Amino acid sequence: MNVTIVGLGLMGGSAAIDLKKRGFAEQIIGVDKNKVNAHIAQHIGLVDAVSDLETAIKVSDIVILAIPVSSALEVLPRVLDVIKHQTVLDFCSTKKDLLKSIKHHKNRKQYVASHPMAGTEFSGPWAAKTGLFDGKASILCNTEESDMKSVEHVKKVYDALHMRTIEMDAESHDIHAAYVSHISHISSFALALTVLEKEKNEKHIFDLASGGFDSTVRLAKSSAEMWTPIFMHNQENVLEVIDTYMEKMQSFRDSIAEGNDTAINNMIQESNRIKRIVK
Amino acid sequence: MNVTIVGLGLMGGSAAIDLKKRGFAEQIIGVDKNKVNAHIAQHIGLVDAVSDLETAIKVSDIVILAIPVSSALEVLPRVLDVIKHQTVLDFCSTKKDLLKSIKHHKNRKQYVASHPMAGTEFSGPWAAKTGLFDGKASILCNTEESDMKSVEHVKKVYDALHMRTIEMDAESHDIHAAYVSHISHISSFALALTVLEKEKNEKHIFDLASGGFDSTVRLAKSSAEMWTPIFMHNQENVLEVIDTYMEKMQSFRDSIAEGNDTAINNMIQESNRIKRIVK
Repeated sequence: MNVTIVGLGLMGGSAAIDLKKRGFAEQIIGVDKNKVNAHIAQHIGLVDAVSDLETAIKVSDIVILAIPVSSALEVLPRVLDVIKHQTVLDFCSTKKDLLKSIKHHKNRKQYVASHPMAGTEFSGPWAAKTGLFDGKASILCNTEESDMKSVEHVKKVYDALHMRTIEMDAESHDIHAAYVSHISHISSFALALTVLEKEKNEKHIFDLASGGFDSTVRLAKSSAEMWTPIFMHNQENVLEVIDTYMEKMQSFRDSIAEGNDTAINNMIQESNRIKRIVK
Repeated sequence: MNVTIVGLGLMGGSAAIDLKKRGFAEQIIGVDKNKVNAHIAQHIGLVDAVSDLETAIKVSDIVILAIPVSSALEVLPRVLDVIKHQTVLDFCSTKKDLLKSIKHHKNRKQYVASHPMAGTEFSGPWAAKTGLFDGKASILCNTEESDMKSVEHVKKVYDALHMRTIEMDAESHDIHAAYVSHISHISSFALALTVLEKEKNEKHIFDLASGGFDSTVRLAKSSAEMWTPIFMHNQENVLEVIDTYMEKMQSFRDSIAEGNDTAINNMIQESNRIKRIVK
Protein backbone atom coordinates (compact mmCIF):
# COMPACT_ATOMS: atom_id res chain seq x y z
CA MET A 1 0.00 0.00 0.00
CA ASN A 2 1.38 3.43 -0.96
CA VAL A 3 0.26 6.49 0.96
CA THR A 4 0.43 10.15 -0.07
CA ILE A 5 0.49 12.61 2.79
CA VAL A 6 -0.24 16.23 1.92
CA GLY A 7 1.16 18.49 4.63
CA LEU A 8 4.30 17.32 6.41
CA GLY A 9 3.89 19.04 9.75
CA LEU A 10 3.17 17.63 13.20
CA MET A 11 0.11 15.60 12.18
CA GLY A 12 1.12 14.46 8.71
CA GLY A 13 4.68 13.74 9.76
CA SER A 14 3.61 11.73 12.81
CA ALA A 15 1.19 9.67 10.70
CA ALA A 16 3.98 9.09 8.17
CA ILE A 17 6.28 7.68 10.85
CA ASP A 18 3.81 5.17 12.28
CA LEU A 19 2.14 4.10 9.02
CA LYS A 20 5.57 3.16 7.67
CA LYS A 21 7.02 1.73 10.88
CA ARG A 22 3.99 -0.46 11.54
CA GLY A 23 4.02 -1.94 8.04
CA PHE A 24 0.82 -0.32 6.82
CA ALA A 25 2.56 1.67 4.08
CA GLU A 26 5.24 0.38 1.73
CA GLN A 27 5.97 3.86 0.45
CA ILE A 28 5.07 7.24 1.92
CA ILE A 29 5.07 10.05 -0.63
CA GLY A 30 5.08 13.52 0.86
CA VAL A 31 3.58 16.66 -0.66
CA ASP A 32 4.06 20.10 0.84
CA LYS A 33 3.82 23.49 -0.82
CA ASN A 34 6.35 24.67 1.74
CA LYS A 35 9.58 23.53 0.05
CA VAL A 36 11.63 23.83 3.23
CA ASN A 37 9.28 21.53 5.15
CA ALA A 38 9.22 19.08 2.25
CA HIS A 39 13.00 19.02 2.18
CA ILE A 40 13.28 18.56 5.95
CA ALA A 41 10.68 15.77 5.92
CA GLN A 42 12.67 13.86 3.32
CA HIS A 43 15.99 14.65 4.95
CA ILE A 44 14.94 13.33 8.37
CA GLY A 45 13.26 10.31 6.84
CA LEU A 46 9.59 11.05 7.53
CA VAL A 47 8.77 10.23 3.89
CA ASP A 48 10.31 8.02 1.23
CA ALA A 49 9.93 10.64 -1.48
CA VAL A 50 8.52 14.09 -2.04
CA SER A 51 6.57 14.90 -5.15
CA ASP A 52 3.98 17.21 -6.65
CA LEU A 53 0.37 16.43 -5.81
CA GLU A 54 -0.75 14.82 -9.07
CA THR A 55 2.28 12.55 -9.46
CA ALA A 56 1.99 11.47 -5.82
CA ILE A 57 -1.70 10.59 -6.14
CA LYS A 58 -1.09 8.46 -9.26
CA VAL A 59 1.24 6.06 -7.44
CA SER A 60 -0.80 5.95 -4.21
CA ASP A 61 -3.72 3.99 -2.79
CA ILE A 62 -4.53 6.38 0.02
CA VAL A 63 -4.26 10.18 0.14
CA ILE A 64 -4.22 11.93 3.51
CA LEU A 65 -4.72 15.69 3.75
CA ALA A 66 -2.94 16.92 6.87
CA ILE A 67 -3.25 20.65 6.18
CA PRO A 68 -5.19 23.53 7.72
CA VAL A 69 -8.90 23.57 6.87
CA SER A 70 -8.52 26.72 4.75
CA SER A 71 -6.02 24.90 2.50
CA ALA A 72 -8.08 21.70 2.47
CA LEU A 73 -11.04 23.65 1.06
CA GLU A 74 -8.91 24.38 -1.96
CA VAL A 75 -6.91 21.11 -2.21
CA LEU A 76 -9.64 18.51 -1.53
CA PRO A 77 -11.68 19.21 -4.71
CA ARG A 78 -8.47 19.11 -6.77
CA VAL A 79 -7.59 15.74 -5.28
CA LEU A 80 -11.07 14.35 -5.89
CA ASP A 81 -10.88 15.60 -9.50
CA VAL A 82 -7.92 13.35 -10.31
CA ILE A 83 -8.33 10.20 -8.23
CA LYS A 84 -9.08 6.84 -9.85
CA HIS A 85 -9.20 4.00 -7.27
CA GLN A 86 -7.74 6.03 -4.38
CA THR A 87 -9.30 6.64 -0.98
CA VAL A 88 -8.96 10.18 0.41
CA LEU A 89 -9.17 11.30 4.03
CA ASP A 90 -8.38 14.51 5.89
CA PHE A 91 -7.27 15.41 9.41
CA CYS A 92 -9.02 18.81 9.63
CA SER A 93 -10.39 20.11 12.93
CA THR A 94 -13.63 21.53 11.51
CA LYS A 95 -15.82 19.55 9.21
CA LYS A 96 -19.06 21.25 8.15
CA ASP A 97 -17.68 23.73 5.58
CA LEU A 98 -15.31 21.18 4.10
CA LEU A 99 -18.00 18.56 3.63
CA LYS A 100 -20.39 21.08 2.15
CA SER A 101 -17.74 22.15 -0.37
CA ILE A 102 -17.48 18.69 -1.99
CA LYS A 103 -20.97 17.36 -1.26
CA HIS A 104 -21.84 17.03 -4.95
CA HIS A 105 -18.44 16.04 -6.30
CA LYS A 106 -18.58 12.97 -8.57
CA ASN A 107 -15.93 11.21 -6.46
CA ARG A 108 -17.40 12.22 -3.09
CA LYS A 109 -17.84 8.58 -2.06
CA GLN A 110 -14.12 7.89 -2.15
CA TYR A 111 -13.52 10.55 0.49
CA VAL A 112 -13.94 10.04 4.23
CA ALA A 113 -13.98 13.07 6.54
CA SER A 114 -12.07 12.46 9.75
CA HIS A 115 -10.55 14.27 12.68
CA PRO A 116 -7.95 12.48 14.76
CA MET A 117 -8.17 14.01 18.27
CA ALA A 118 -4.48 14.18 18.98
CA GLY A 119 -1.73 16.73 18.79
CA THR A 120 0.79 18.75 20.69
CA GLU A 121 1.40 22.48 20.84
CA PHE A 122 4.33 22.12 18.43
CA SER A 123 4.25 22.26 14.65
CA GLY A 124 6.30 21.49 11.57
CA PRO A 125 8.11 18.29 10.48
CA TRP A 126 10.55 18.42 13.41
CA ALA A 127 7.57 18.12 15.79
CA ALA A 128 6.47 14.81 14.24
CA LYS A 129 6.83 11.82 16.52
CA THR A 130 5.89 8.18 16.83
CA GLY A 131 2.94 7.32 19.05
CA LEU A 132 1.27 10.73 18.75
CA PHE A 133 -2.10 9.14 17.98
CA ASP A 134 -1.86 6.03 20.17
CA GLY A 135 -4.90 5.35 22.32
CA LYS A 136 -6.77 8.47 21.21
CA ALA A 137 -10.06 8.75 19.27
CA SER A 138 -10.61 9.78 15.68
CA ILE A 139 -14.01 11.12 14.62
CA LEU A 140 -15.35 9.99 11.25
CA CYS A 141 -18.06 12.31 9.91
CA ASN A 142 -21.02 11.66 7.60
CA THR A 143 -19.76 8.20 6.68
CA GLU A 144 -23.08 7.50 4.94
CA GLU A 145 -21.86 9.86 2.19
CA SER A 146 -18.78 7.65 1.60
CA ASP A 147 -18.75 4.17 0.12
CA MET A 148 -18.16 1.24 2.45
CA LYS A 149 -14.84 0.28 0.91
CA SER A 150 -13.40 3.75 1.55
CA VAL A 151 -14.67 3.78 5.12
CA GLU A 152 -13.07 0.37 5.71
CA HIS A 153 -9.84 1.65 4.20
CA VAL A 154 -9.80 4.65 6.50
CA LYS A 155 -10.58 2.52 9.54
CA LYS A 156 -7.48 0.47 8.70
CA VAL A 157 -5.41 3.66 8.61
CA TYR A 158 -6.62 4.54 12.11
CA ASP A 159 -6.11 1.00 13.27
CA ALA A 160 -2.46 1.28 12.21
CA LEU A 161 -2.29 4.59 14.12
CA HIS A 162 -3.68 2.76 17.18
CA MET A 163 -6.76 4.97 17.31
CA ARG A 164 -10.36 4.02 17.92
CA THR A 165 -12.92 5.56 15.60
CA ILE A 166 -16.20 7.24 16.51
CA GLU A 167 -18.87 8.21 13.98
CA MET A 168 -20.72 11.51 14.15
CA ASP A 169 -22.37 13.95 11.75
CA ALA A 170 -20.30 16.99 10.78
CA GLU A 171 -22.48 19.50 12.59
CA SER A 172 -22.30 17.63 15.88
CA HIS A 173 -18.56 17.23 15.43
CA ASP A 174 -18.08 20.97 15.02
CA ILE A 175 -20.20 21.75 18.08
CA HIS A 176 -18.36 19.24 20.29
CA ALA A 177 -14.97 20.35 18.95
CA ALA A 178 -15.83 23.96 19.83
CA TYR A 179 -16.86 23.00 23.36
CA VAL A 180 -13.98 20.72 24.16
CA SER A 181 -11.04 21.68 21.96
CA HIS A 182 -11.44 25.13 20.42
CA ILE A 183 -12.37 26.99 23.62
CA SER A 184 -9.36 25.42 25.38
CA HIS A 185 -7.12 27.02 22.81
CA ILE A 186 -8.81 30.41 23.00
CA SER A 187 -8.63 30.42 26.80
CA SER A 188 -4.93 29.58 26.56
CA PHE A 189 -4.24 32.29 23.98
CA ALA A 190 -6.11 34.83 26.14
CA LEU A 191 -4.12 33.74 29.20
CA ALA A 192 -0.80 34.14 27.40
CA LEU A 193 -1.79 37.61 26.16
CA THR A 194 -2.89 38.62 29.67
CA VAL A 195 0.31 37.50 31.33
CA LEU A 196 2.55 38.91 28.59
CA GLU A 197 0.81 42.28 28.93
CA LYS A 198 0.81 42.37 32.72
CA GLU A 199 4.20 40.83 33.36
CA LYS A 200 6.83 42.87 31.60
CA ASN A 201 9.47 40.97 33.56
CA GLU A 202 9.88 37.62 31.82
CA LYS A 203 12.09 36.26 34.58
CA HIS A 204 9.13 36.56 36.97
CA ILE A 205 6.90 34.59 34.61
CA PHE A 206 9.52 31.89 34.38
CA ASP A 207 10.04 31.68 38.14
CA LEU A 208 6.34 31.62 38.94
CA ALA A 209 5.19 29.42 36.06
CA SER A 210 5.48 26.15 37.95
CA GLY A 211 2.38 27.11 39.94
CA GLY A 212 0.22 25.66 37.15
CA PHE A 213 0.55 28.36 34.53
CA ASP A 214 2.76 26.24 32.28
CA SER A 215 0.06 23.59 31.90
CA THR A 216 -2.81 26.02 31.33
CA VAL A 217 -0.88 28.13 28.85
CA ARG A 218 0.66 25.23 26.93
CA LEU A 219 -1.77 25.46 24.03
CA ALA A 220 -0.89 29.12 23.50
CA LYS A 221 2.20 27.86 21.70
CA SER A 222 -0.08 26.47 18.96
CA SER A 223 0.32 27.64 15.40
CA ALA A 224 -1.66 30.61 14.06
CA GLU A 225 -1.61 29.05 10.59
CA MET A 226 -3.60 26.09 11.86
CA TRP A 227 -5.88 27.80 14.39
CA THR A 228 -7.01 30.94 12.58
CA PRO A 229 -8.91 28.93 9.92
CA ILE A 230 -10.44 26.71 12.61
CA PHE A 231 -12.02 29.70 14.35
CA MET A 232 -13.08 31.16 10.98
CA HIS A 233 -14.73 27.91 9.90
CA ASN A 234 -16.40 27.15 13.20
CA GLN A 235 -17.46 30.70 13.89
CA GLU A 236 -20.99 30.19 15.17
CA ASN A 237 -20.19 27.37 17.60
CA VAL A 238 -17.03 29.06 18.85
CA LEU A 239 -18.88 32.32 19.54
CA GLU A 240 -21.53 30.48 21.51
CA VAL A 241 -19.02 28.68 23.68
CA ILE A 242 -17.00 31.89 24.24
CA ASP A 243 -20.21 33.51 25.52
CA THR A 244 -20.81 30.71 28.00
CA TYR A 245 -17.17 30.83 29.05
CA MET A 246 -17.34 34.57 29.65
CA GLU A 247 -20.50 34.14 31.74
CA LYS A 248 -18.65 31.66 33.97
CA MET A 249 -15.68 34.00 34.24
CA GLN A 250 -18.02 36.86 35.10
CA SER A 251 -19.61 34.77 37.88
CA PHE A 252 -16.19 34.19 39.38
CA ARG A 253 -15.45 37.88 39.08
CA ASP A 254 -18.73 38.85 40.77
CA SER A 255 -18.30 36.38 43.61
CA ILE A 256 -14.72 37.46 44.26
CA ALA A 257 -15.73 41.16 44.13
CA GLU A 258 -18.51 40.48 46.64
CA GLY A 259 -16.19 38.43 48.84
CA ASN A 260 -18.75 35.62 48.62
CA ASP A 261 -16.63 32.66 49.66
CA THR A 262 -19.55 30.24 49.63
CA ALA A 263 -20.27 31.00 45.98
CA ILE A 264 -16.58 30.69 45.01
CA ASN A 265 -16.30 27.42 46.90
CA ASN A 266 -19.41 26.04 45.19
CA MET A 267 -18.18 26.96 41.72
CA ILE A 268 -14.81 25.31 42.32
CA GLN A 269 -16.46 22.17 43.67
CA GLU A 270 -18.79 22.10 40.68
CA SER A 271 -15.84 22.42 38.31
CA ASN A 272 -14.05 19.60 40.17
CA ARG A 273 -16.60 17.24 38.56
CA ILE A 274 -14.29 17.30 35.54
CA LYS A 275 -12.05 14.94 37.56
CA ARG A 276 -14.08 11.91 36.79
CA ILE A 277 -14.03 12.59 33.05
CA VAL A 278 -10.53 13.64 32.08
CA LYS A 279 -7.35 11.90 33.11
CA MET B 1 16.87 18.68 63.41
CA ASN B 2 13.20 17.99 64.18
CA VAL B 3 10.54 19.47 61.94
CA THR B 4 6.85 20.03 62.66
CA ILE B 5 4.63 20.16 59.62
CA VAL B 6 1.14 21.57 60.14
CA GLY B 7 -1.12 20.37 57.34
CA LEU B 8 -0.42 16.93 55.88
CA GLY B 9 -1.81 17.37 52.39
CA LEU B 10 -0.04 17.53 49.04
CA MET B 11 2.41 20.26 50.00
CA GLY B 12 3.11 19.36 53.63
CA GLY B 13 3.25 15.65 52.88
CA SER B 14 5.63 16.10 49.97
CA ALA B 15 7.93 18.30 52.05
CA ALA B 16 7.82 15.67 54.82
CA ILE B 17 8.99 12.94 52.44
CA ASP B 18 11.98 14.81 51.06
CA LEU B 19 13.13 16.53 54.27
CA LYS B 20 13.32 13.10 55.91
CA LYS B 21 14.69 11.17 52.94
CA ARG B 22 17.44 13.71 52.27
CA GLY B 23 18.64 13.71 55.88
CA PHE B 24 17.53 17.24 56.73
CA ALA B 25 15.07 16.11 59.40
CA GLU B 26 15.68 13.47 62.04
CA GLN B 27 12.05 13.46 63.07
CA ILE B 28 9.01 14.80 61.26
CA ILE B 29 6.07 15.50 63.54
CA GLY B 30 2.75 15.96 61.79
CA VAL B 31 -0.16 18.13 62.93
CA ASP B 32 -3.51 18.11 61.16
CA LYS B 33 -6.91 19.10 62.53
CA ASN B 34 -8.35 16.61 60.05
CA LYS B 35 -7.95 13.39 62.05
CA VAL B 36 -8.39 11.17 59.01
CA ASN B 37 -5.56 12.90 57.14
CA ALA B 38 -3.35 12.77 60.21
CA HIS B 39 -3.99 9.07 60.56
CA ILE B 40 -3.32 8.39 56.88
CA ALA B 41 -0.11 10.45 56.96
CA GLN B 42 1.20 8.39 59.84
CA HIS B 43 -0.05 5.14 58.38
CA ILE B 44 1.68 5.64 55.02
CA GLY B 45 4.85 6.89 56.68
CA LEU B 46 4.83 10.55 55.69
CA VAL B 47 5.53 11.52 59.30
CA ASP B 48 7.25 9.85 62.25
CA ALA B 49 4.55 10.91 64.69
CA VAL B 50 1.37 12.95 64.87
CA SER B 51 0.72 15.26 67.73
CA ASP B 52 -1.19 18.34 68.84
CA LEU B 53 0.29 21.67 67.82
CA GLU B 54 1.84 22.77 71.11
CA THR B 55 3.48 19.44 71.91
CA ALA B 56 4.86 19.22 68.37
CA ILE B 57 6.37 22.70 68.50
CA LYS B 58 8.11 22.01 71.83
CA VAL B 59 10.19 19.16 70.40
CA SER B 60 10.91 20.85 67.05
CA ASP B 61 13.44 23.25 65.60
CA ILE B 62 11.45 24.22 62.56
CA VAL B 63 7.69 24.62 62.14
CA ILE B 64 6.20 24.61 58.63
CA LEU B 65 2.62 25.74 58.04
CA ALA B 66 1.31 23.95 54.95
CA ILE B 67 -2.33 24.96 55.32
CA PRO B 68 -4.72 27.25 53.41
CA VAL B 69 -4.14 30.95 53.99
CA SER B 70 -7.45 31.31 55.86
CA SER B 71 -6.27 28.74 58.41
CA ALA B 72 -2.77 30.19 58.57
CA LEU B 73 -4.22 33.56 59.59
CA GLU B 74 -5.54 31.84 62.70
CA VAL B 75 -2.72 29.34 63.35
CA LEU B 76 0.37 31.49 62.70
CA PRO B 77 -0.17 33.88 65.66
CA ARG B 78 -0.81 30.90 67.95
CA VAL B 79 2.45 29.33 66.82
CA LEU B 80 4.39 32.55 67.29
CA ASP B 81 2.89 32.89 70.78
CA VAL B 82 4.50 29.67 72.00
CA ILE B 83 7.82 29.33 70.15
CA LYS B 84 11.13 29.62 71.98
CA HIS B 85 14.12 29.02 69.67
CA GLN B 86 12.07 27.69 66.71
CA THR B 87 11.98 29.06 63.19
CA VAL B 88 8.56 29.21 61.54
CA LEU B 89 7.76 29.30 57.82
CA ASP B 90 4.61 28.95 55.77
CA PHE B 91 3.76 27.73 52.26
CA CYS B 92 0.77 30.02 51.63
CA SER B 93 -0.05 31.30 48.14
CA THR B 94 -0.95 34.84 49.21
CA LYS B 95 1.23 36.85 51.53
CA LYS B 96 0.07 40.42 52.18
CA ASP B 97 -2.78 39.72 54.62
CA LEU B 98 -0.82 37.06 56.47
CA LEU B 99 2.21 39.29 56.97
CA LYS B 100 0.06 42.20 58.06
CA SER B 101 -1.64 40.02 60.67
CA ILE B 102 1.59 39.27 62.59
CA LYS B 103 3.58 42.41 61.74
CA HIS B 104 3.80 43.51 65.38
CA HIS B 105 4.06 40.10 67.03
CA LYS B 106 6.91 39.89 69.52
CA ASN B 107 8.32 36.82 67.79
CA ARG B 108 7.84 38.13 64.23
CA LYS B 109 11.56 37.87 63.50
CA GLN B 110 11.55 34.09 63.91
CA TYR B 111 9.02 33.74 61.10
CA VAL B 112 9.86 33.76 57.40
CA ALA B 113 7.08 34.14 54.85
CA SER B 114 7.54 31.89 51.84
CA HIS B 115 5.70 30.45 48.88
CA PRO B 116 7.12 27.41 47.15
CA MET B 117 5.91 27.60 43.54
CA ALA B 118 5.12 23.95 43.07
CA GLY B 119 2.11 21.72 43.25
CA THR B 120 -0.19 19.44 41.35
CA GLU B 121 -3.95 19.48 40.91
CA PHE B 122 -4.31 16.76 43.55
CA SER B 123 -4.70 17.16 47.27
CA GLY B 124 -4.52 15.28 50.55
CA PRO B 125 -1.81 13.02 52.03
CA TRP B 126 -2.17 10.43 49.27
CA ALA B 127 -1.16 13.07 46.72
CA ALA B 128 2.18 13.71 48.47
CA LYS B 129 5.23 12.65 46.50
CA THR B 130 8.97 12.92 46.43
CA GLY B 131 10.52 15.48 44.09
CA LEU B 132 7.45 17.74 43.98
CA PHE B 133 9.58 20.82 44.66
CA ASP B 134 12.73 19.86 42.75
CA GLY B 135 14.10 22.54 40.46
CA LYS B 136 11.29 25.01 41.18
CA ALA B 137 11.48 28.45 42.85
CA SER B 138 10.33 29.48 46.30
CA ILE B 139 9.55 33.12 46.98
CA LEU B 140 10.67 34.54 50.33
CA CYS B 141 8.79 37.71 51.28
CA ASN B 142 9.79 40.69 53.40
CA THR B 143 12.90 38.93 54.71
CA GLU B 144 14.07 42.22 56.26
CA GLU B 145 11.34 41.67 58.89
CA SER B 146 12.88 38.33 59.88
CA ASP B 147 16.19 37.80 61.64
CA MET B 148 19.14 36.51 59.64
CA LYS B 149 19.36 33.22 61.48
CA SER B 150 15.75 32.36 60.65
CA VAL B 151 16.21 33.30 56.99
CA GLU B 152 19.29 31.09 56.81
CA HIS B 153 17.35 28.27 58.43
CA VAL B 154 14.55 28.56 55.90
CA LYS B 155 17.00 28.69 52.99
CA LYS B 156 18.39 25.37 54.22
CA VAL B 157 14.88 23.90 54.19
CA TYR B 158 14.49 24.95 50.56
CA ASP B 159 17.96 23.74 49.74
CA ALA B 160 16.94 20.28 51.01
CA LEU B 161 13.79 20.54 48.87
CA HIS B 162 16.05 21.33 45.87
CA MET B 163 14.45 24.73 45.36
CA ARG B 164 16.08 28.04 44.55
CA THR B 165 14.88 31.02 46.56
CA ILE B 166 13.88 34.45 45.27
CA GLU B 167 13.23 37.45 47.50
CA MET B 168 10.34 39.82 46.93
CA ASP B 169 8.09 42.06 48.99
CA ALA B 170 4.66 40.64 49.86
CA GLU B 171 2.71 43.09 47.70
CA SER B 172 4.75 42.29 44.60
CA HIS B 173 4.43 38.60 45.33
CA ASP B 174 0.65 38.82 45.47
CA ILE B 175 0.49 40.76 42.20
CA HIS B 176 2.77 38.34 40.35
CA ALA B 177 0.99 35.32 41.81
CA ALA B 178 -2.36 36.72 40.60
CA TYR B 179 -0.98 37.26 37.09
CA VAL B 180 0.79 33.97 36.69
CA SER B 181 -0.83 31.44 39.01
CA HIS B 182 -4.25 32.57 40.21
CA ILE B 183 -5.68 33.54 36.81
CA SER B 184 -4.56 30.16 35.42
CA HIS B 185 -6.71 28.46 37.99
CA ILE B 186 -9.73 30.69 37.40
CA SER B 187 -9.50 30.18 33.63
CA SER B 188 -9.36 26.43 34.19
CA PHE B 189 -12.33 26.45 36.58
CA ALA B 190 -14.34 28.53 34.10
CA LEU B 191 -13.39 26.15 31.29
CA ALA B 192 -14.52 23.11 33.27
CA LEU B 193 -17.83 24.79 34.14
CA THR B 194 -18.38 25.74 30.49
CA VAL B 195 -17.74 22.28 29.16
CA LEU B 196 -19.73 20.57 31.91
CA GLU B 197 -22.69 22.83 31.16
CA LYS B 198 -22.49 22.52 27.39
CA GLU B 199 -21.56 18.86 27.12
CA LYS B 200 -24.15 16.81 28.88
CA ASN B 201 -22.63 13.72 27.28
CA GLU B 202 -19.55 12.88 29.34
CA LYS B 203 -18.42 10.23 26.87
CA HIS B 204 -17.99 12.98 24.26
CA ILE B 205 -15.84 15.03 26.61
CA PHE B 206 -13.67 12.01 27.26
CA ASP B 207 -13.30 11.14 23.59
CA LEU B 208 -12.52 14.68 22.52
CA ALA B 209 -10.37 15.67 25.49
CA SER B 210 -7.08 14.66 23.92
CA GLY B 211 -7.33 17.70 21.64
CA GLY B 212 -5.71 19.80 24.35
CA PHE B 213 -8.59 20.18 26.79
CA ASP B 214 -7.06 17.83 29.34
CA SER B 215 -4.01 20.04 29.75
CA THR B 216 -5.92 23.34 29.92
CA VAL B 217 -8.51 22.02 32.34
CA ARG B 218 -6.06 20.16 34.58
CA LEU B 219 -6.06 22.83 37.29
CA ALA B 220 -9.85 22.65 37.57
CA LYS B 221 -9.30 19.56 39.69
CA SER B 222 -7.72 21.77 42.37
CA SER B 223 -9.18 21.91 45.83
CA ALA B 224 -11.84 24.47 46.76
CA GLU B 225 -10.58 24.44 50.34
CA MET B 226 -7.22 25.79 49.21
CA TRP B 227 -8.29 28.08 46.38
CA THR B 228 -11.31 29.90 47.82
CA PRO B 229 -9.18 31.64 50.50
CA ILE B 230 -6.54 32.54 47.91
CA PHE B 231 -9.06 34.45 45.82
CA MET B 232 -10.54 36.03 48.95
CA HIS B 233 -7.14 37.19 50.19
CA ASN B 234 -5.83 38.42 46.86
CA GLN B 235 -9.10 40.03 45.80
CA GLU B 236 -7.87 43.29 44.33
CA ASN B 237 -5.07 41.78 42.21
CA VAL B 238 -7.20 38.88 41.06
CA LEU B 239 -10.02 41.19 39.96
CA GLU B 240 -7.60 43.31 37.98
CA VAL B 241 -6.14 40.35 36.16
CA ILE B 242 -9.60 38.88 35.45
CA ASP B 243 -10.53 42.20 33.83
CA THR B 244 -7.50 42.10 31.54
CA TYR B 245 -8.21 38.47 30.75
CA MET B 246 -11.81 39.22 29.82
CA GLU B 247 -10.66 42.07 27.56
CA LYS B 248 -8.41 39.64 25.69
CA MET B 249 -11.20 37.11 25.43
CA GLN B 250 -13.53 39.82 24.16
CA SER B 251 -10.98 40.79 21.48
CA PHE B 252 -10.94 37.20 20.28
CA ARG B 253 -14.72 37.15 20.28
CA ASP B 254 -14.95 40.38 18.31
CA SER B 255 -12.39 39.29 15.72
CA ILE B 256 -14.07 35.91 15.24
CA ALA B 257 -17.50 37.55 14.99
CA GLU B 258 -16.17 39.95 12.36
CA GLY B 259 -14.42 37.13 10.51
CA ASN B 260 -11.22 39.16 10.79
CA ASP B 261 -8.62 36.47 10.15
CA THR B 262 -5.72 38.93 10.19
CA ALA B 263 -6.60 40.07 13.71
CA ILE B 264 -7.03 36.49 14.94
CA ASN B 265 -3.75 35.48 13.36
CA ASN B 266 -1.95 38.43 14.96
CA MET B 267 -3.33 37.68 18.42
CA ILE B 268 -2.27 34.04 18.20
CA GLN B 269 1.20 34.99 17.01
CA GLU B 270 1.48 37.52 19.82
CA SER B 271 0.46 34.89 22.36
CA ASN B 272 3.04 32.48 20.87
CA ARG B 273 5.70 34.70 22.50
CA ILE B 274 5.01 32.70 25.66
CA LYS B 275 7.06 29.91 24.01
CA ARG B 276 10.36 31.45 24.90
CA ILE B 277 9.42 31.84 28.54
CA VAL B 278 7.68 28.67 29.67
CA LYS B 279 8.92 25.18 29.01
